Amino acid sequence: MTDAPPRAFRLGLINPNTDTAHTAAMLEVVAGVLPAGGAVDAVAVARGPRSIESRADAAVAAAEVARAVHDDPGHDAYLIACFGDPGLDAARELTGAPVVGIGAAAFAAVAMVARRFAVITTLARGIAELEEAVEAAGLRRRCAGVLALGIPVAAQGAAYPDTTERIIELGRRACEELGADALVLACGGMSGVTERVAQAVGVPATNGVAVGALTAHALWRAGLRTSAGGAYAPPEPIPYDGMPSFTRS
Amino acid sequence: MTDAPPRAFRLGLINPNTDTAHTAAMLEVVAGVLPAGGAVDAVAVARGPRSIESRADAAVAAAEVARAVHDDPGHDAYLIACFGDPGLDAARELTGAPVVGIGAAAFAAVAMVARRFAVITTLARGIAELEEAVEAAGLRRRCAGVLALGIPVAAQGAAYPDTTERIIELGRRACEELGADALVLACGGMSGVTERVAQAVGVPATNGVAVGALTAHALWRAGLRTSAGGAYAPPEPIPYDGMPSFTRS
Amino acid sequence: MTDAPPRAFRLGLINPNTDTAHTAAMLEVVAGVLPAGGAVDAVAVARGPRSIESRADAAVAAAEVARAVHDDPGHDAYLIACFGDPGLDAARELTGAPVVGIGAAAFAAVAMVARRFAVITTLARGIAELEEAVEAAGLRRRCAGVLALGIPVAAQGAAYPDTTERIIELGRRACEELGADALVLACGGMSGVTERVAQAVGVPATNGVAVGALTAHALWRAGLRTSAGGAYAPPEPIPYDGMPSFTRS
Amino acid sequence: MTDAPPRAFRLGLINPNTDTAHTAAMLEVVAGVLPAGGAVDAVAVARGPRSIESRADAAVAAAEVARAVHDDPGHDAYLIACFGDPGLDAARELTGAPVVGIGAAAFAAVAMVARRFAVITTLARGIAELEEAVEAAGLRRRCAGVLALGIPVAAQGAAYPDTTERIIELGRRACEELGADALVLACGGMSGVTERVAQAVGVPATNGVAVGALTAHALWRAGLRTSAGGAYAPPEPIPYDGMPSFTRS
Amino acid sequence: MTDAPPRAFRLGLINPNTDTAHTAAMLEVVAGVLPAGGAVDAVAVARGPRSIESRADAAVAAAEVARAVHDDPGHDAYLIACFGDPGLDAARELTGAPVVGIGAAAFAAVAMVARRFAVITTLARGIAELEEAVEAAGLRRRCAGVLALGIPVAAQGAAYPDTTERIIELGRRACEELGADALVLACGGMSGVTERVAQAVGVPATNGVAVGALTAHALWRAGLRTSAGGAYAPPEPIPYDGMPSFTRS
Amino acid sequence: MTDAPPRAFRLGLINPNTDTAHTAAMLEVVAGVLPAGGAVDAVAVARGPRSIESRADAAVAAAEVARAVHDDPGHDAYLIACFGDPGLDAARELTGAPVVGIGAAAFAAVAMVARRFAVITTLARGIAELEEAVEAAGLRRRCAGVLALGIPVAAQGAAYPDTTERIIELGRRACEELGADALVLACGGMSGVTERVAQAVGVPATNGVAVGALTAHALWRAGLRTSAGGAYAPPEPIPYDGMPSFTRS
Repeated sequence: MTDAPPRAFRLGLINPNTDTAHTAAMLEVVAGVLPAGGAVDAVAVARGPRSIESRADAAVAAAEVARAVHDDPGHDAYLIACFGDPGLDAARELTGAPVVGIGAAAFAAVAMVARRFAVITTLARGIAELEEAVEAAGLRRRCAGVLALGIPVAAQGAAYPDTTERIIELGRRACEELGADALVLACGGMSGVTERVAQAVGVPATNGVAVGALTAHALWRAGLRTSAGGAYAPPEPIPYDGMPSFTRS
Repeated sequence: MTDAPPRAFRLGLINPNTDTAHTAAMLEVVAGVLPAGGAVDAVAVARGPRSIESRADAAVAAAEVARAVHDDPGHDAYLIACFGDPGLDAARELTGAPVVGIGAAAFAAVAMVARRFAVITTLARGIAELEEAVEAAGLRRRCAGVLALGIPVAAQGAAYPDTTERIIELGRRACEELGADALVLACGGMSGVTERVAQAVGVPATNGVAVGALTAHALWRAGLRTSAGGAYAPPEPIPYDGMPSFTRS
Repeated sequence: MTDAPPRAFRLGLINPNTDTAHTAAMLEVVAGVLPAGGAVDAVAVARGPRSIESRADAAVAAAEVARAVHDDPGHDAYLIACFGDPGLDAARELTGAPVVGIGAAAFAAVAMVARRFAVITTLARGIAELEEAVEAAGLRRRCAGVLALGIPVAAQGAAYPDTTERIIELGRRACEELGADALVLACGGMSGVTERVAQAVGVPATNGVAVGALTAHALWRAGLRTSAGGAYAPPEPIPYDGMPSFTRS
Repeated sequence: MTDAPPRAFRLGLINPNTDTAHTAAMLEVVAGVLPAGGAVDAVAVARGPRSIESRADAAVAAAEVARAVHDDPGHDAYLIACFGDPGLDAARELTGAPVVGIGAAAFAAVAMVARRFAVITTLARGIAELEEAVEAAGLRRRCAGVLALGIPVAAQGAAYPDTTERIIELGRRACEELGADALVLACGGMSGVTERVAQAVGVPATNGVAVGALTAHALWRAGLRTSAGGAYAPPEPIPYDGMPSFTRS
Repeated sequence: MTDAPPRAFRLGLINPNTDTAHTAAMLEVVAGVLPAGGAVDAVAVARGPRSIESRADAAVAAAEVARAVHDDPGHDAYLIACFGDPGLDAARELTGAPVVGIGAAAFAAVAMVARRFAVITTLARGIAELEEAVEAAGLRRRCAGVLALGIPVAAQGAAYPDTTERIIELGRRACEELGADALVLACGGMSGVTERVAQAVGVPATNGVAVGALTAHALWRAGLRTSAGGAYAPPEPIPYDGMPSFTRS
Repeated sequence: MTDAPPRAFRLGLINPNTDTAHTAAMLEVVAGVLPAGGAVDAVAVARGPRSIESRADAAVAAAEVARAVHDDPGHDAYLIACFGDPGLDAARELTGAPVVGIGAAAFAAVAMVARRFAVITTLARGIAELEEAVEAAGLRRRCAGVLALGIPVAAQGAAYPDTTERIIELGRRACEELGADALVLACGGMSGVTERVAQAVGVPATNGVAVGALTAHALWRAGLRTSAGGAYAPPEPIPYDGMPSFTRS
């Protein structure tokens, strides 16, 4: 048995949209997996879209995520809990704590348990962006395909069993026809049904909320902090009009 | 001689920062190159950083750019006049008119007049992001290097001759030591000194403001409009909290 | 309203094949889109294939394009009006004026109005070369597919309505089955039917002749000239046997 | 505060070389960071090189790693504690538990806390392989360089202060001259000095042993298991000559 | 007519598996194509899998290949005769003679006679690894697809006519549906049926055994030897436990 | 000892420039390495540049290479003996025999004997094109650099000892400063000094003439012919003006 960690770990979970029911569901998922002594709080986004389906929604959300991290600086690590990771680079300039996005975390995790994975998303309009995210993660050749449910973010989760059935159906097709060995569920709203999908399809599945929280913990516990130099250095002291400037905590 | 175009072209120039002197300087550059019958107006960003040096600044600016395009829909094309192209994909969802970013336009143009180019930016913190932009533009193998002046956006332009001398010095070094054949000046604030740098260094130089405006005109005149399907489809009708939702013009 | 450009713009259009009817059709397309004061002339290729379907045809045509630019040096910019851009790099060594290829121009343009595009070509033998051109343009991940009509260059254009119907049919399939948001018509001979295809399929379409001419104008008007250093420097003074050497205008 | 995990986590640490002092040092590092309730055991490699400097050494070690996982199947996760990750894919066929390599874990972690990192290795002969590993991790454009100490594996660790000074010196050069924001120490033997290097250079540093163990825990706790389908399916029942066949636990 | 080579060429063929019937079949193929004066011997692998279907099999085989080259150093060149090229880099450290893998040789050869090829393998589990090999060979964009027979290594060769029929059927499908112009038969055991498949499908086919042996001869005859510097330098003098160390011949 | 090949091998060597002294020197190199029974003839290019330094020279030469292969169809294989491989794809449409370029052959060969190589060329203007050729060969990450002598093609070869000294000096620098393990001499005119350079620098060196001829032999002897389908199918029957059309032999 190892020693207990030197002190408690406190994670800030940022739901980039304003749907508080989704926030609560993700907090529960995270609280259920953090090591003993770990805690998670919601870091509130003040305003913006109630769900994020478009790049316009994401642009607004990214600015709010940056503001939220800036205004609530006391956590050991942050988790941006929307699969598109809005505001990730901006947030890393605003805190020395590690900042993890659930999209990047899901891709890093799936690549360690399978050789080829499929990505399941909500609407077809998001396919191009997810293909670019897979490319940015360096995993293009390991992605068997990106498939869309045709069902929006707002109808994801345990309360929508039909959506879950459709995810399972698409997952089976990805394995049988495209040769996928694992699934990435590309929506924070799918966090409550991940295990169910994995069991039904018979391959590993992740949506990044659970593994993203544990990744944030891992970075923190290994002593890694966001670099204060180079691209993630604290913002320059630029004057802002109509809103307060950013300064790094 | 060709026929006159069927009607006047009206370009919306969006300066993503709130520095109105920069806006005025860029409007002058654009007005000086548009074909007869073309006109350019500033599309105002309501608030945010007075210059954009960090990803946090850019995240705020991107949201404001999206809002500006949404709220001022009557132009034939839009030009986002900051080299990082903040809000470009979001803006394309919000209008059927072509939307051009000066960064993407500068890379497309330089690739047609030279085989290897160097990029000159303001601060070293921006190097990583520009390297990613070169990669995204598919031009990694044609980029001889990204060099930083160590001088912020706010000290760029014709009013800062020492900055211009430093750009020329870096440009010469890029050609002699790195084998560059052309220069990309990666800051909208450099638009007034581009010609001077090109002449002093003896290679083509662009910063994207002039060629970006002409590219927007070219897309429009060729009958190209932003696709209304797929990734650039108008935003879904998502409810927003604390601000109005987006709907595509 | 902006000032008129300092003087008229004169574009040299090079049809790399010897089909003068195609040349005339493309001249008309270009003349219809150039800004007021702009003019276009044909720069004649003396001999070679009447259409370009193979790499052997293209090799002959490339040499003729280089010769044509060399022998007719007085234009402000040149447009190589065959989708494979034969002789493009060679031509750039032979003139200080910008040289644009319709293939490269079409790819650069479509990437600014859509996130994923499909390419429609004449014969299946050209698919591999077009895939390489997409890769060279840095747009591999944004290309939904390259589809062949199975109809040669010589049967393209407004005089072949059945060909146009087939283009429309392939275009619809590319959008519905492959997720394309826009079309690139990869043959100069399709320049007269581009608008018709775009309207029928309901997405942006380009074949590069119109937007290529406007791009050449844009480079020129922005003051960009082909770099005289590095890879595009004027040819070395090499003796030739059986034909005159090249010297840069 | 969260619930305790349902039961203890038991990690198998595989040192692919036969240097038991290195094994002991890495066990101590891992034991020091695992969450409460977690434990780590050495999974012994029977024979082979006492350190791994060449591909020939690595080939032998990879076969021994596969054998060790096969013969000691009872762990919740495995960590292959040599930076080249020898035998990683083979081991994943031989167990349903997650298998993490410290090289892949270090690259995944550093990419979440910095935008550009440098890699410090032991001998120059390893540079090419590490460059390929960076490429395989999809991080080529974020790697500022791979630098060699010119000091072998056997002279790494807290007992060799001169080596540590040399790592610090190289790390500073990587930041100042190459623009690195973080360091990857590419040798399991450097696990005891990582923190010292990070503090001296002033940027995040990782060598993968600590963060790799925590990553293995994270995968396990998030319910992810190595896929039993596709490329990581249990080995086919092939007869072996001169040694026992593999069968998946 | 040219002079005879200065002395006879002697190739060492290493079958990484222990199936001596396969070894004999491949020796016959090689002996049939080597230039006059050339000879081929089997370099025996002492133990390990009787065929190689998994990465665990390949890990064991790679170590045995390295050992075999080390222990039988007198050849002018070596051919590793399993499509996955197990132990290739390790073997290159252990001899100054050129070492060729049949996989790498097959890819290099097919790229010189066709623009797009398909790869036919034994089991679906190998698809991911072959896709990575195509990528490593720099030929991703020229590979039309990797198709699996669903028939193991042990049932390949002239003694299994049904397997050959299935290869032909898959090959035809690859040409008709995927646009392949040539086939790569990705298994050393297919060496005896390559010509039959090529004739039946009507496109070039290779499995690397014949062309790999001739490539090894070509490297040797052109005076090329494995580099003794950098990544392929002889192994460091590392002590081994339980087996002899490697030293380069 | 193996059987003699069924009949003599007859290689057509195409020097794309009109310098007959270079042709003679390369014929001698090739004749010295071909297996017993092999013969080489020059396939004459009628006209064009006496050496190839620019893309304009290469465009003319490519058309002449295609014509030469078309007009002299009786060889078992062809070797295009200029490092830029002018007309390679065109020539492959015009013959069923394998066609090898010395550039592609040199890259394929060096990748089998070293992990990182440097390329030495004549003039700096060729660097960008060689970097693209390395990328097209899929070897970007294995190329330590492309270095220019600043000495034209016409002053290469055994008659220019000062040039040879300069090659050796650059080669040493490439190994010491850039970490190269091998050299590619990127000019057919260097074929007579390759061995001397290799010995002086102490690493493998190739310029492709010798290994290219042996590669052409290897493809032929292994039964590989240029694919008659897809991209290398015989040219379409296109009418030509001012010169005869191509038809495949």
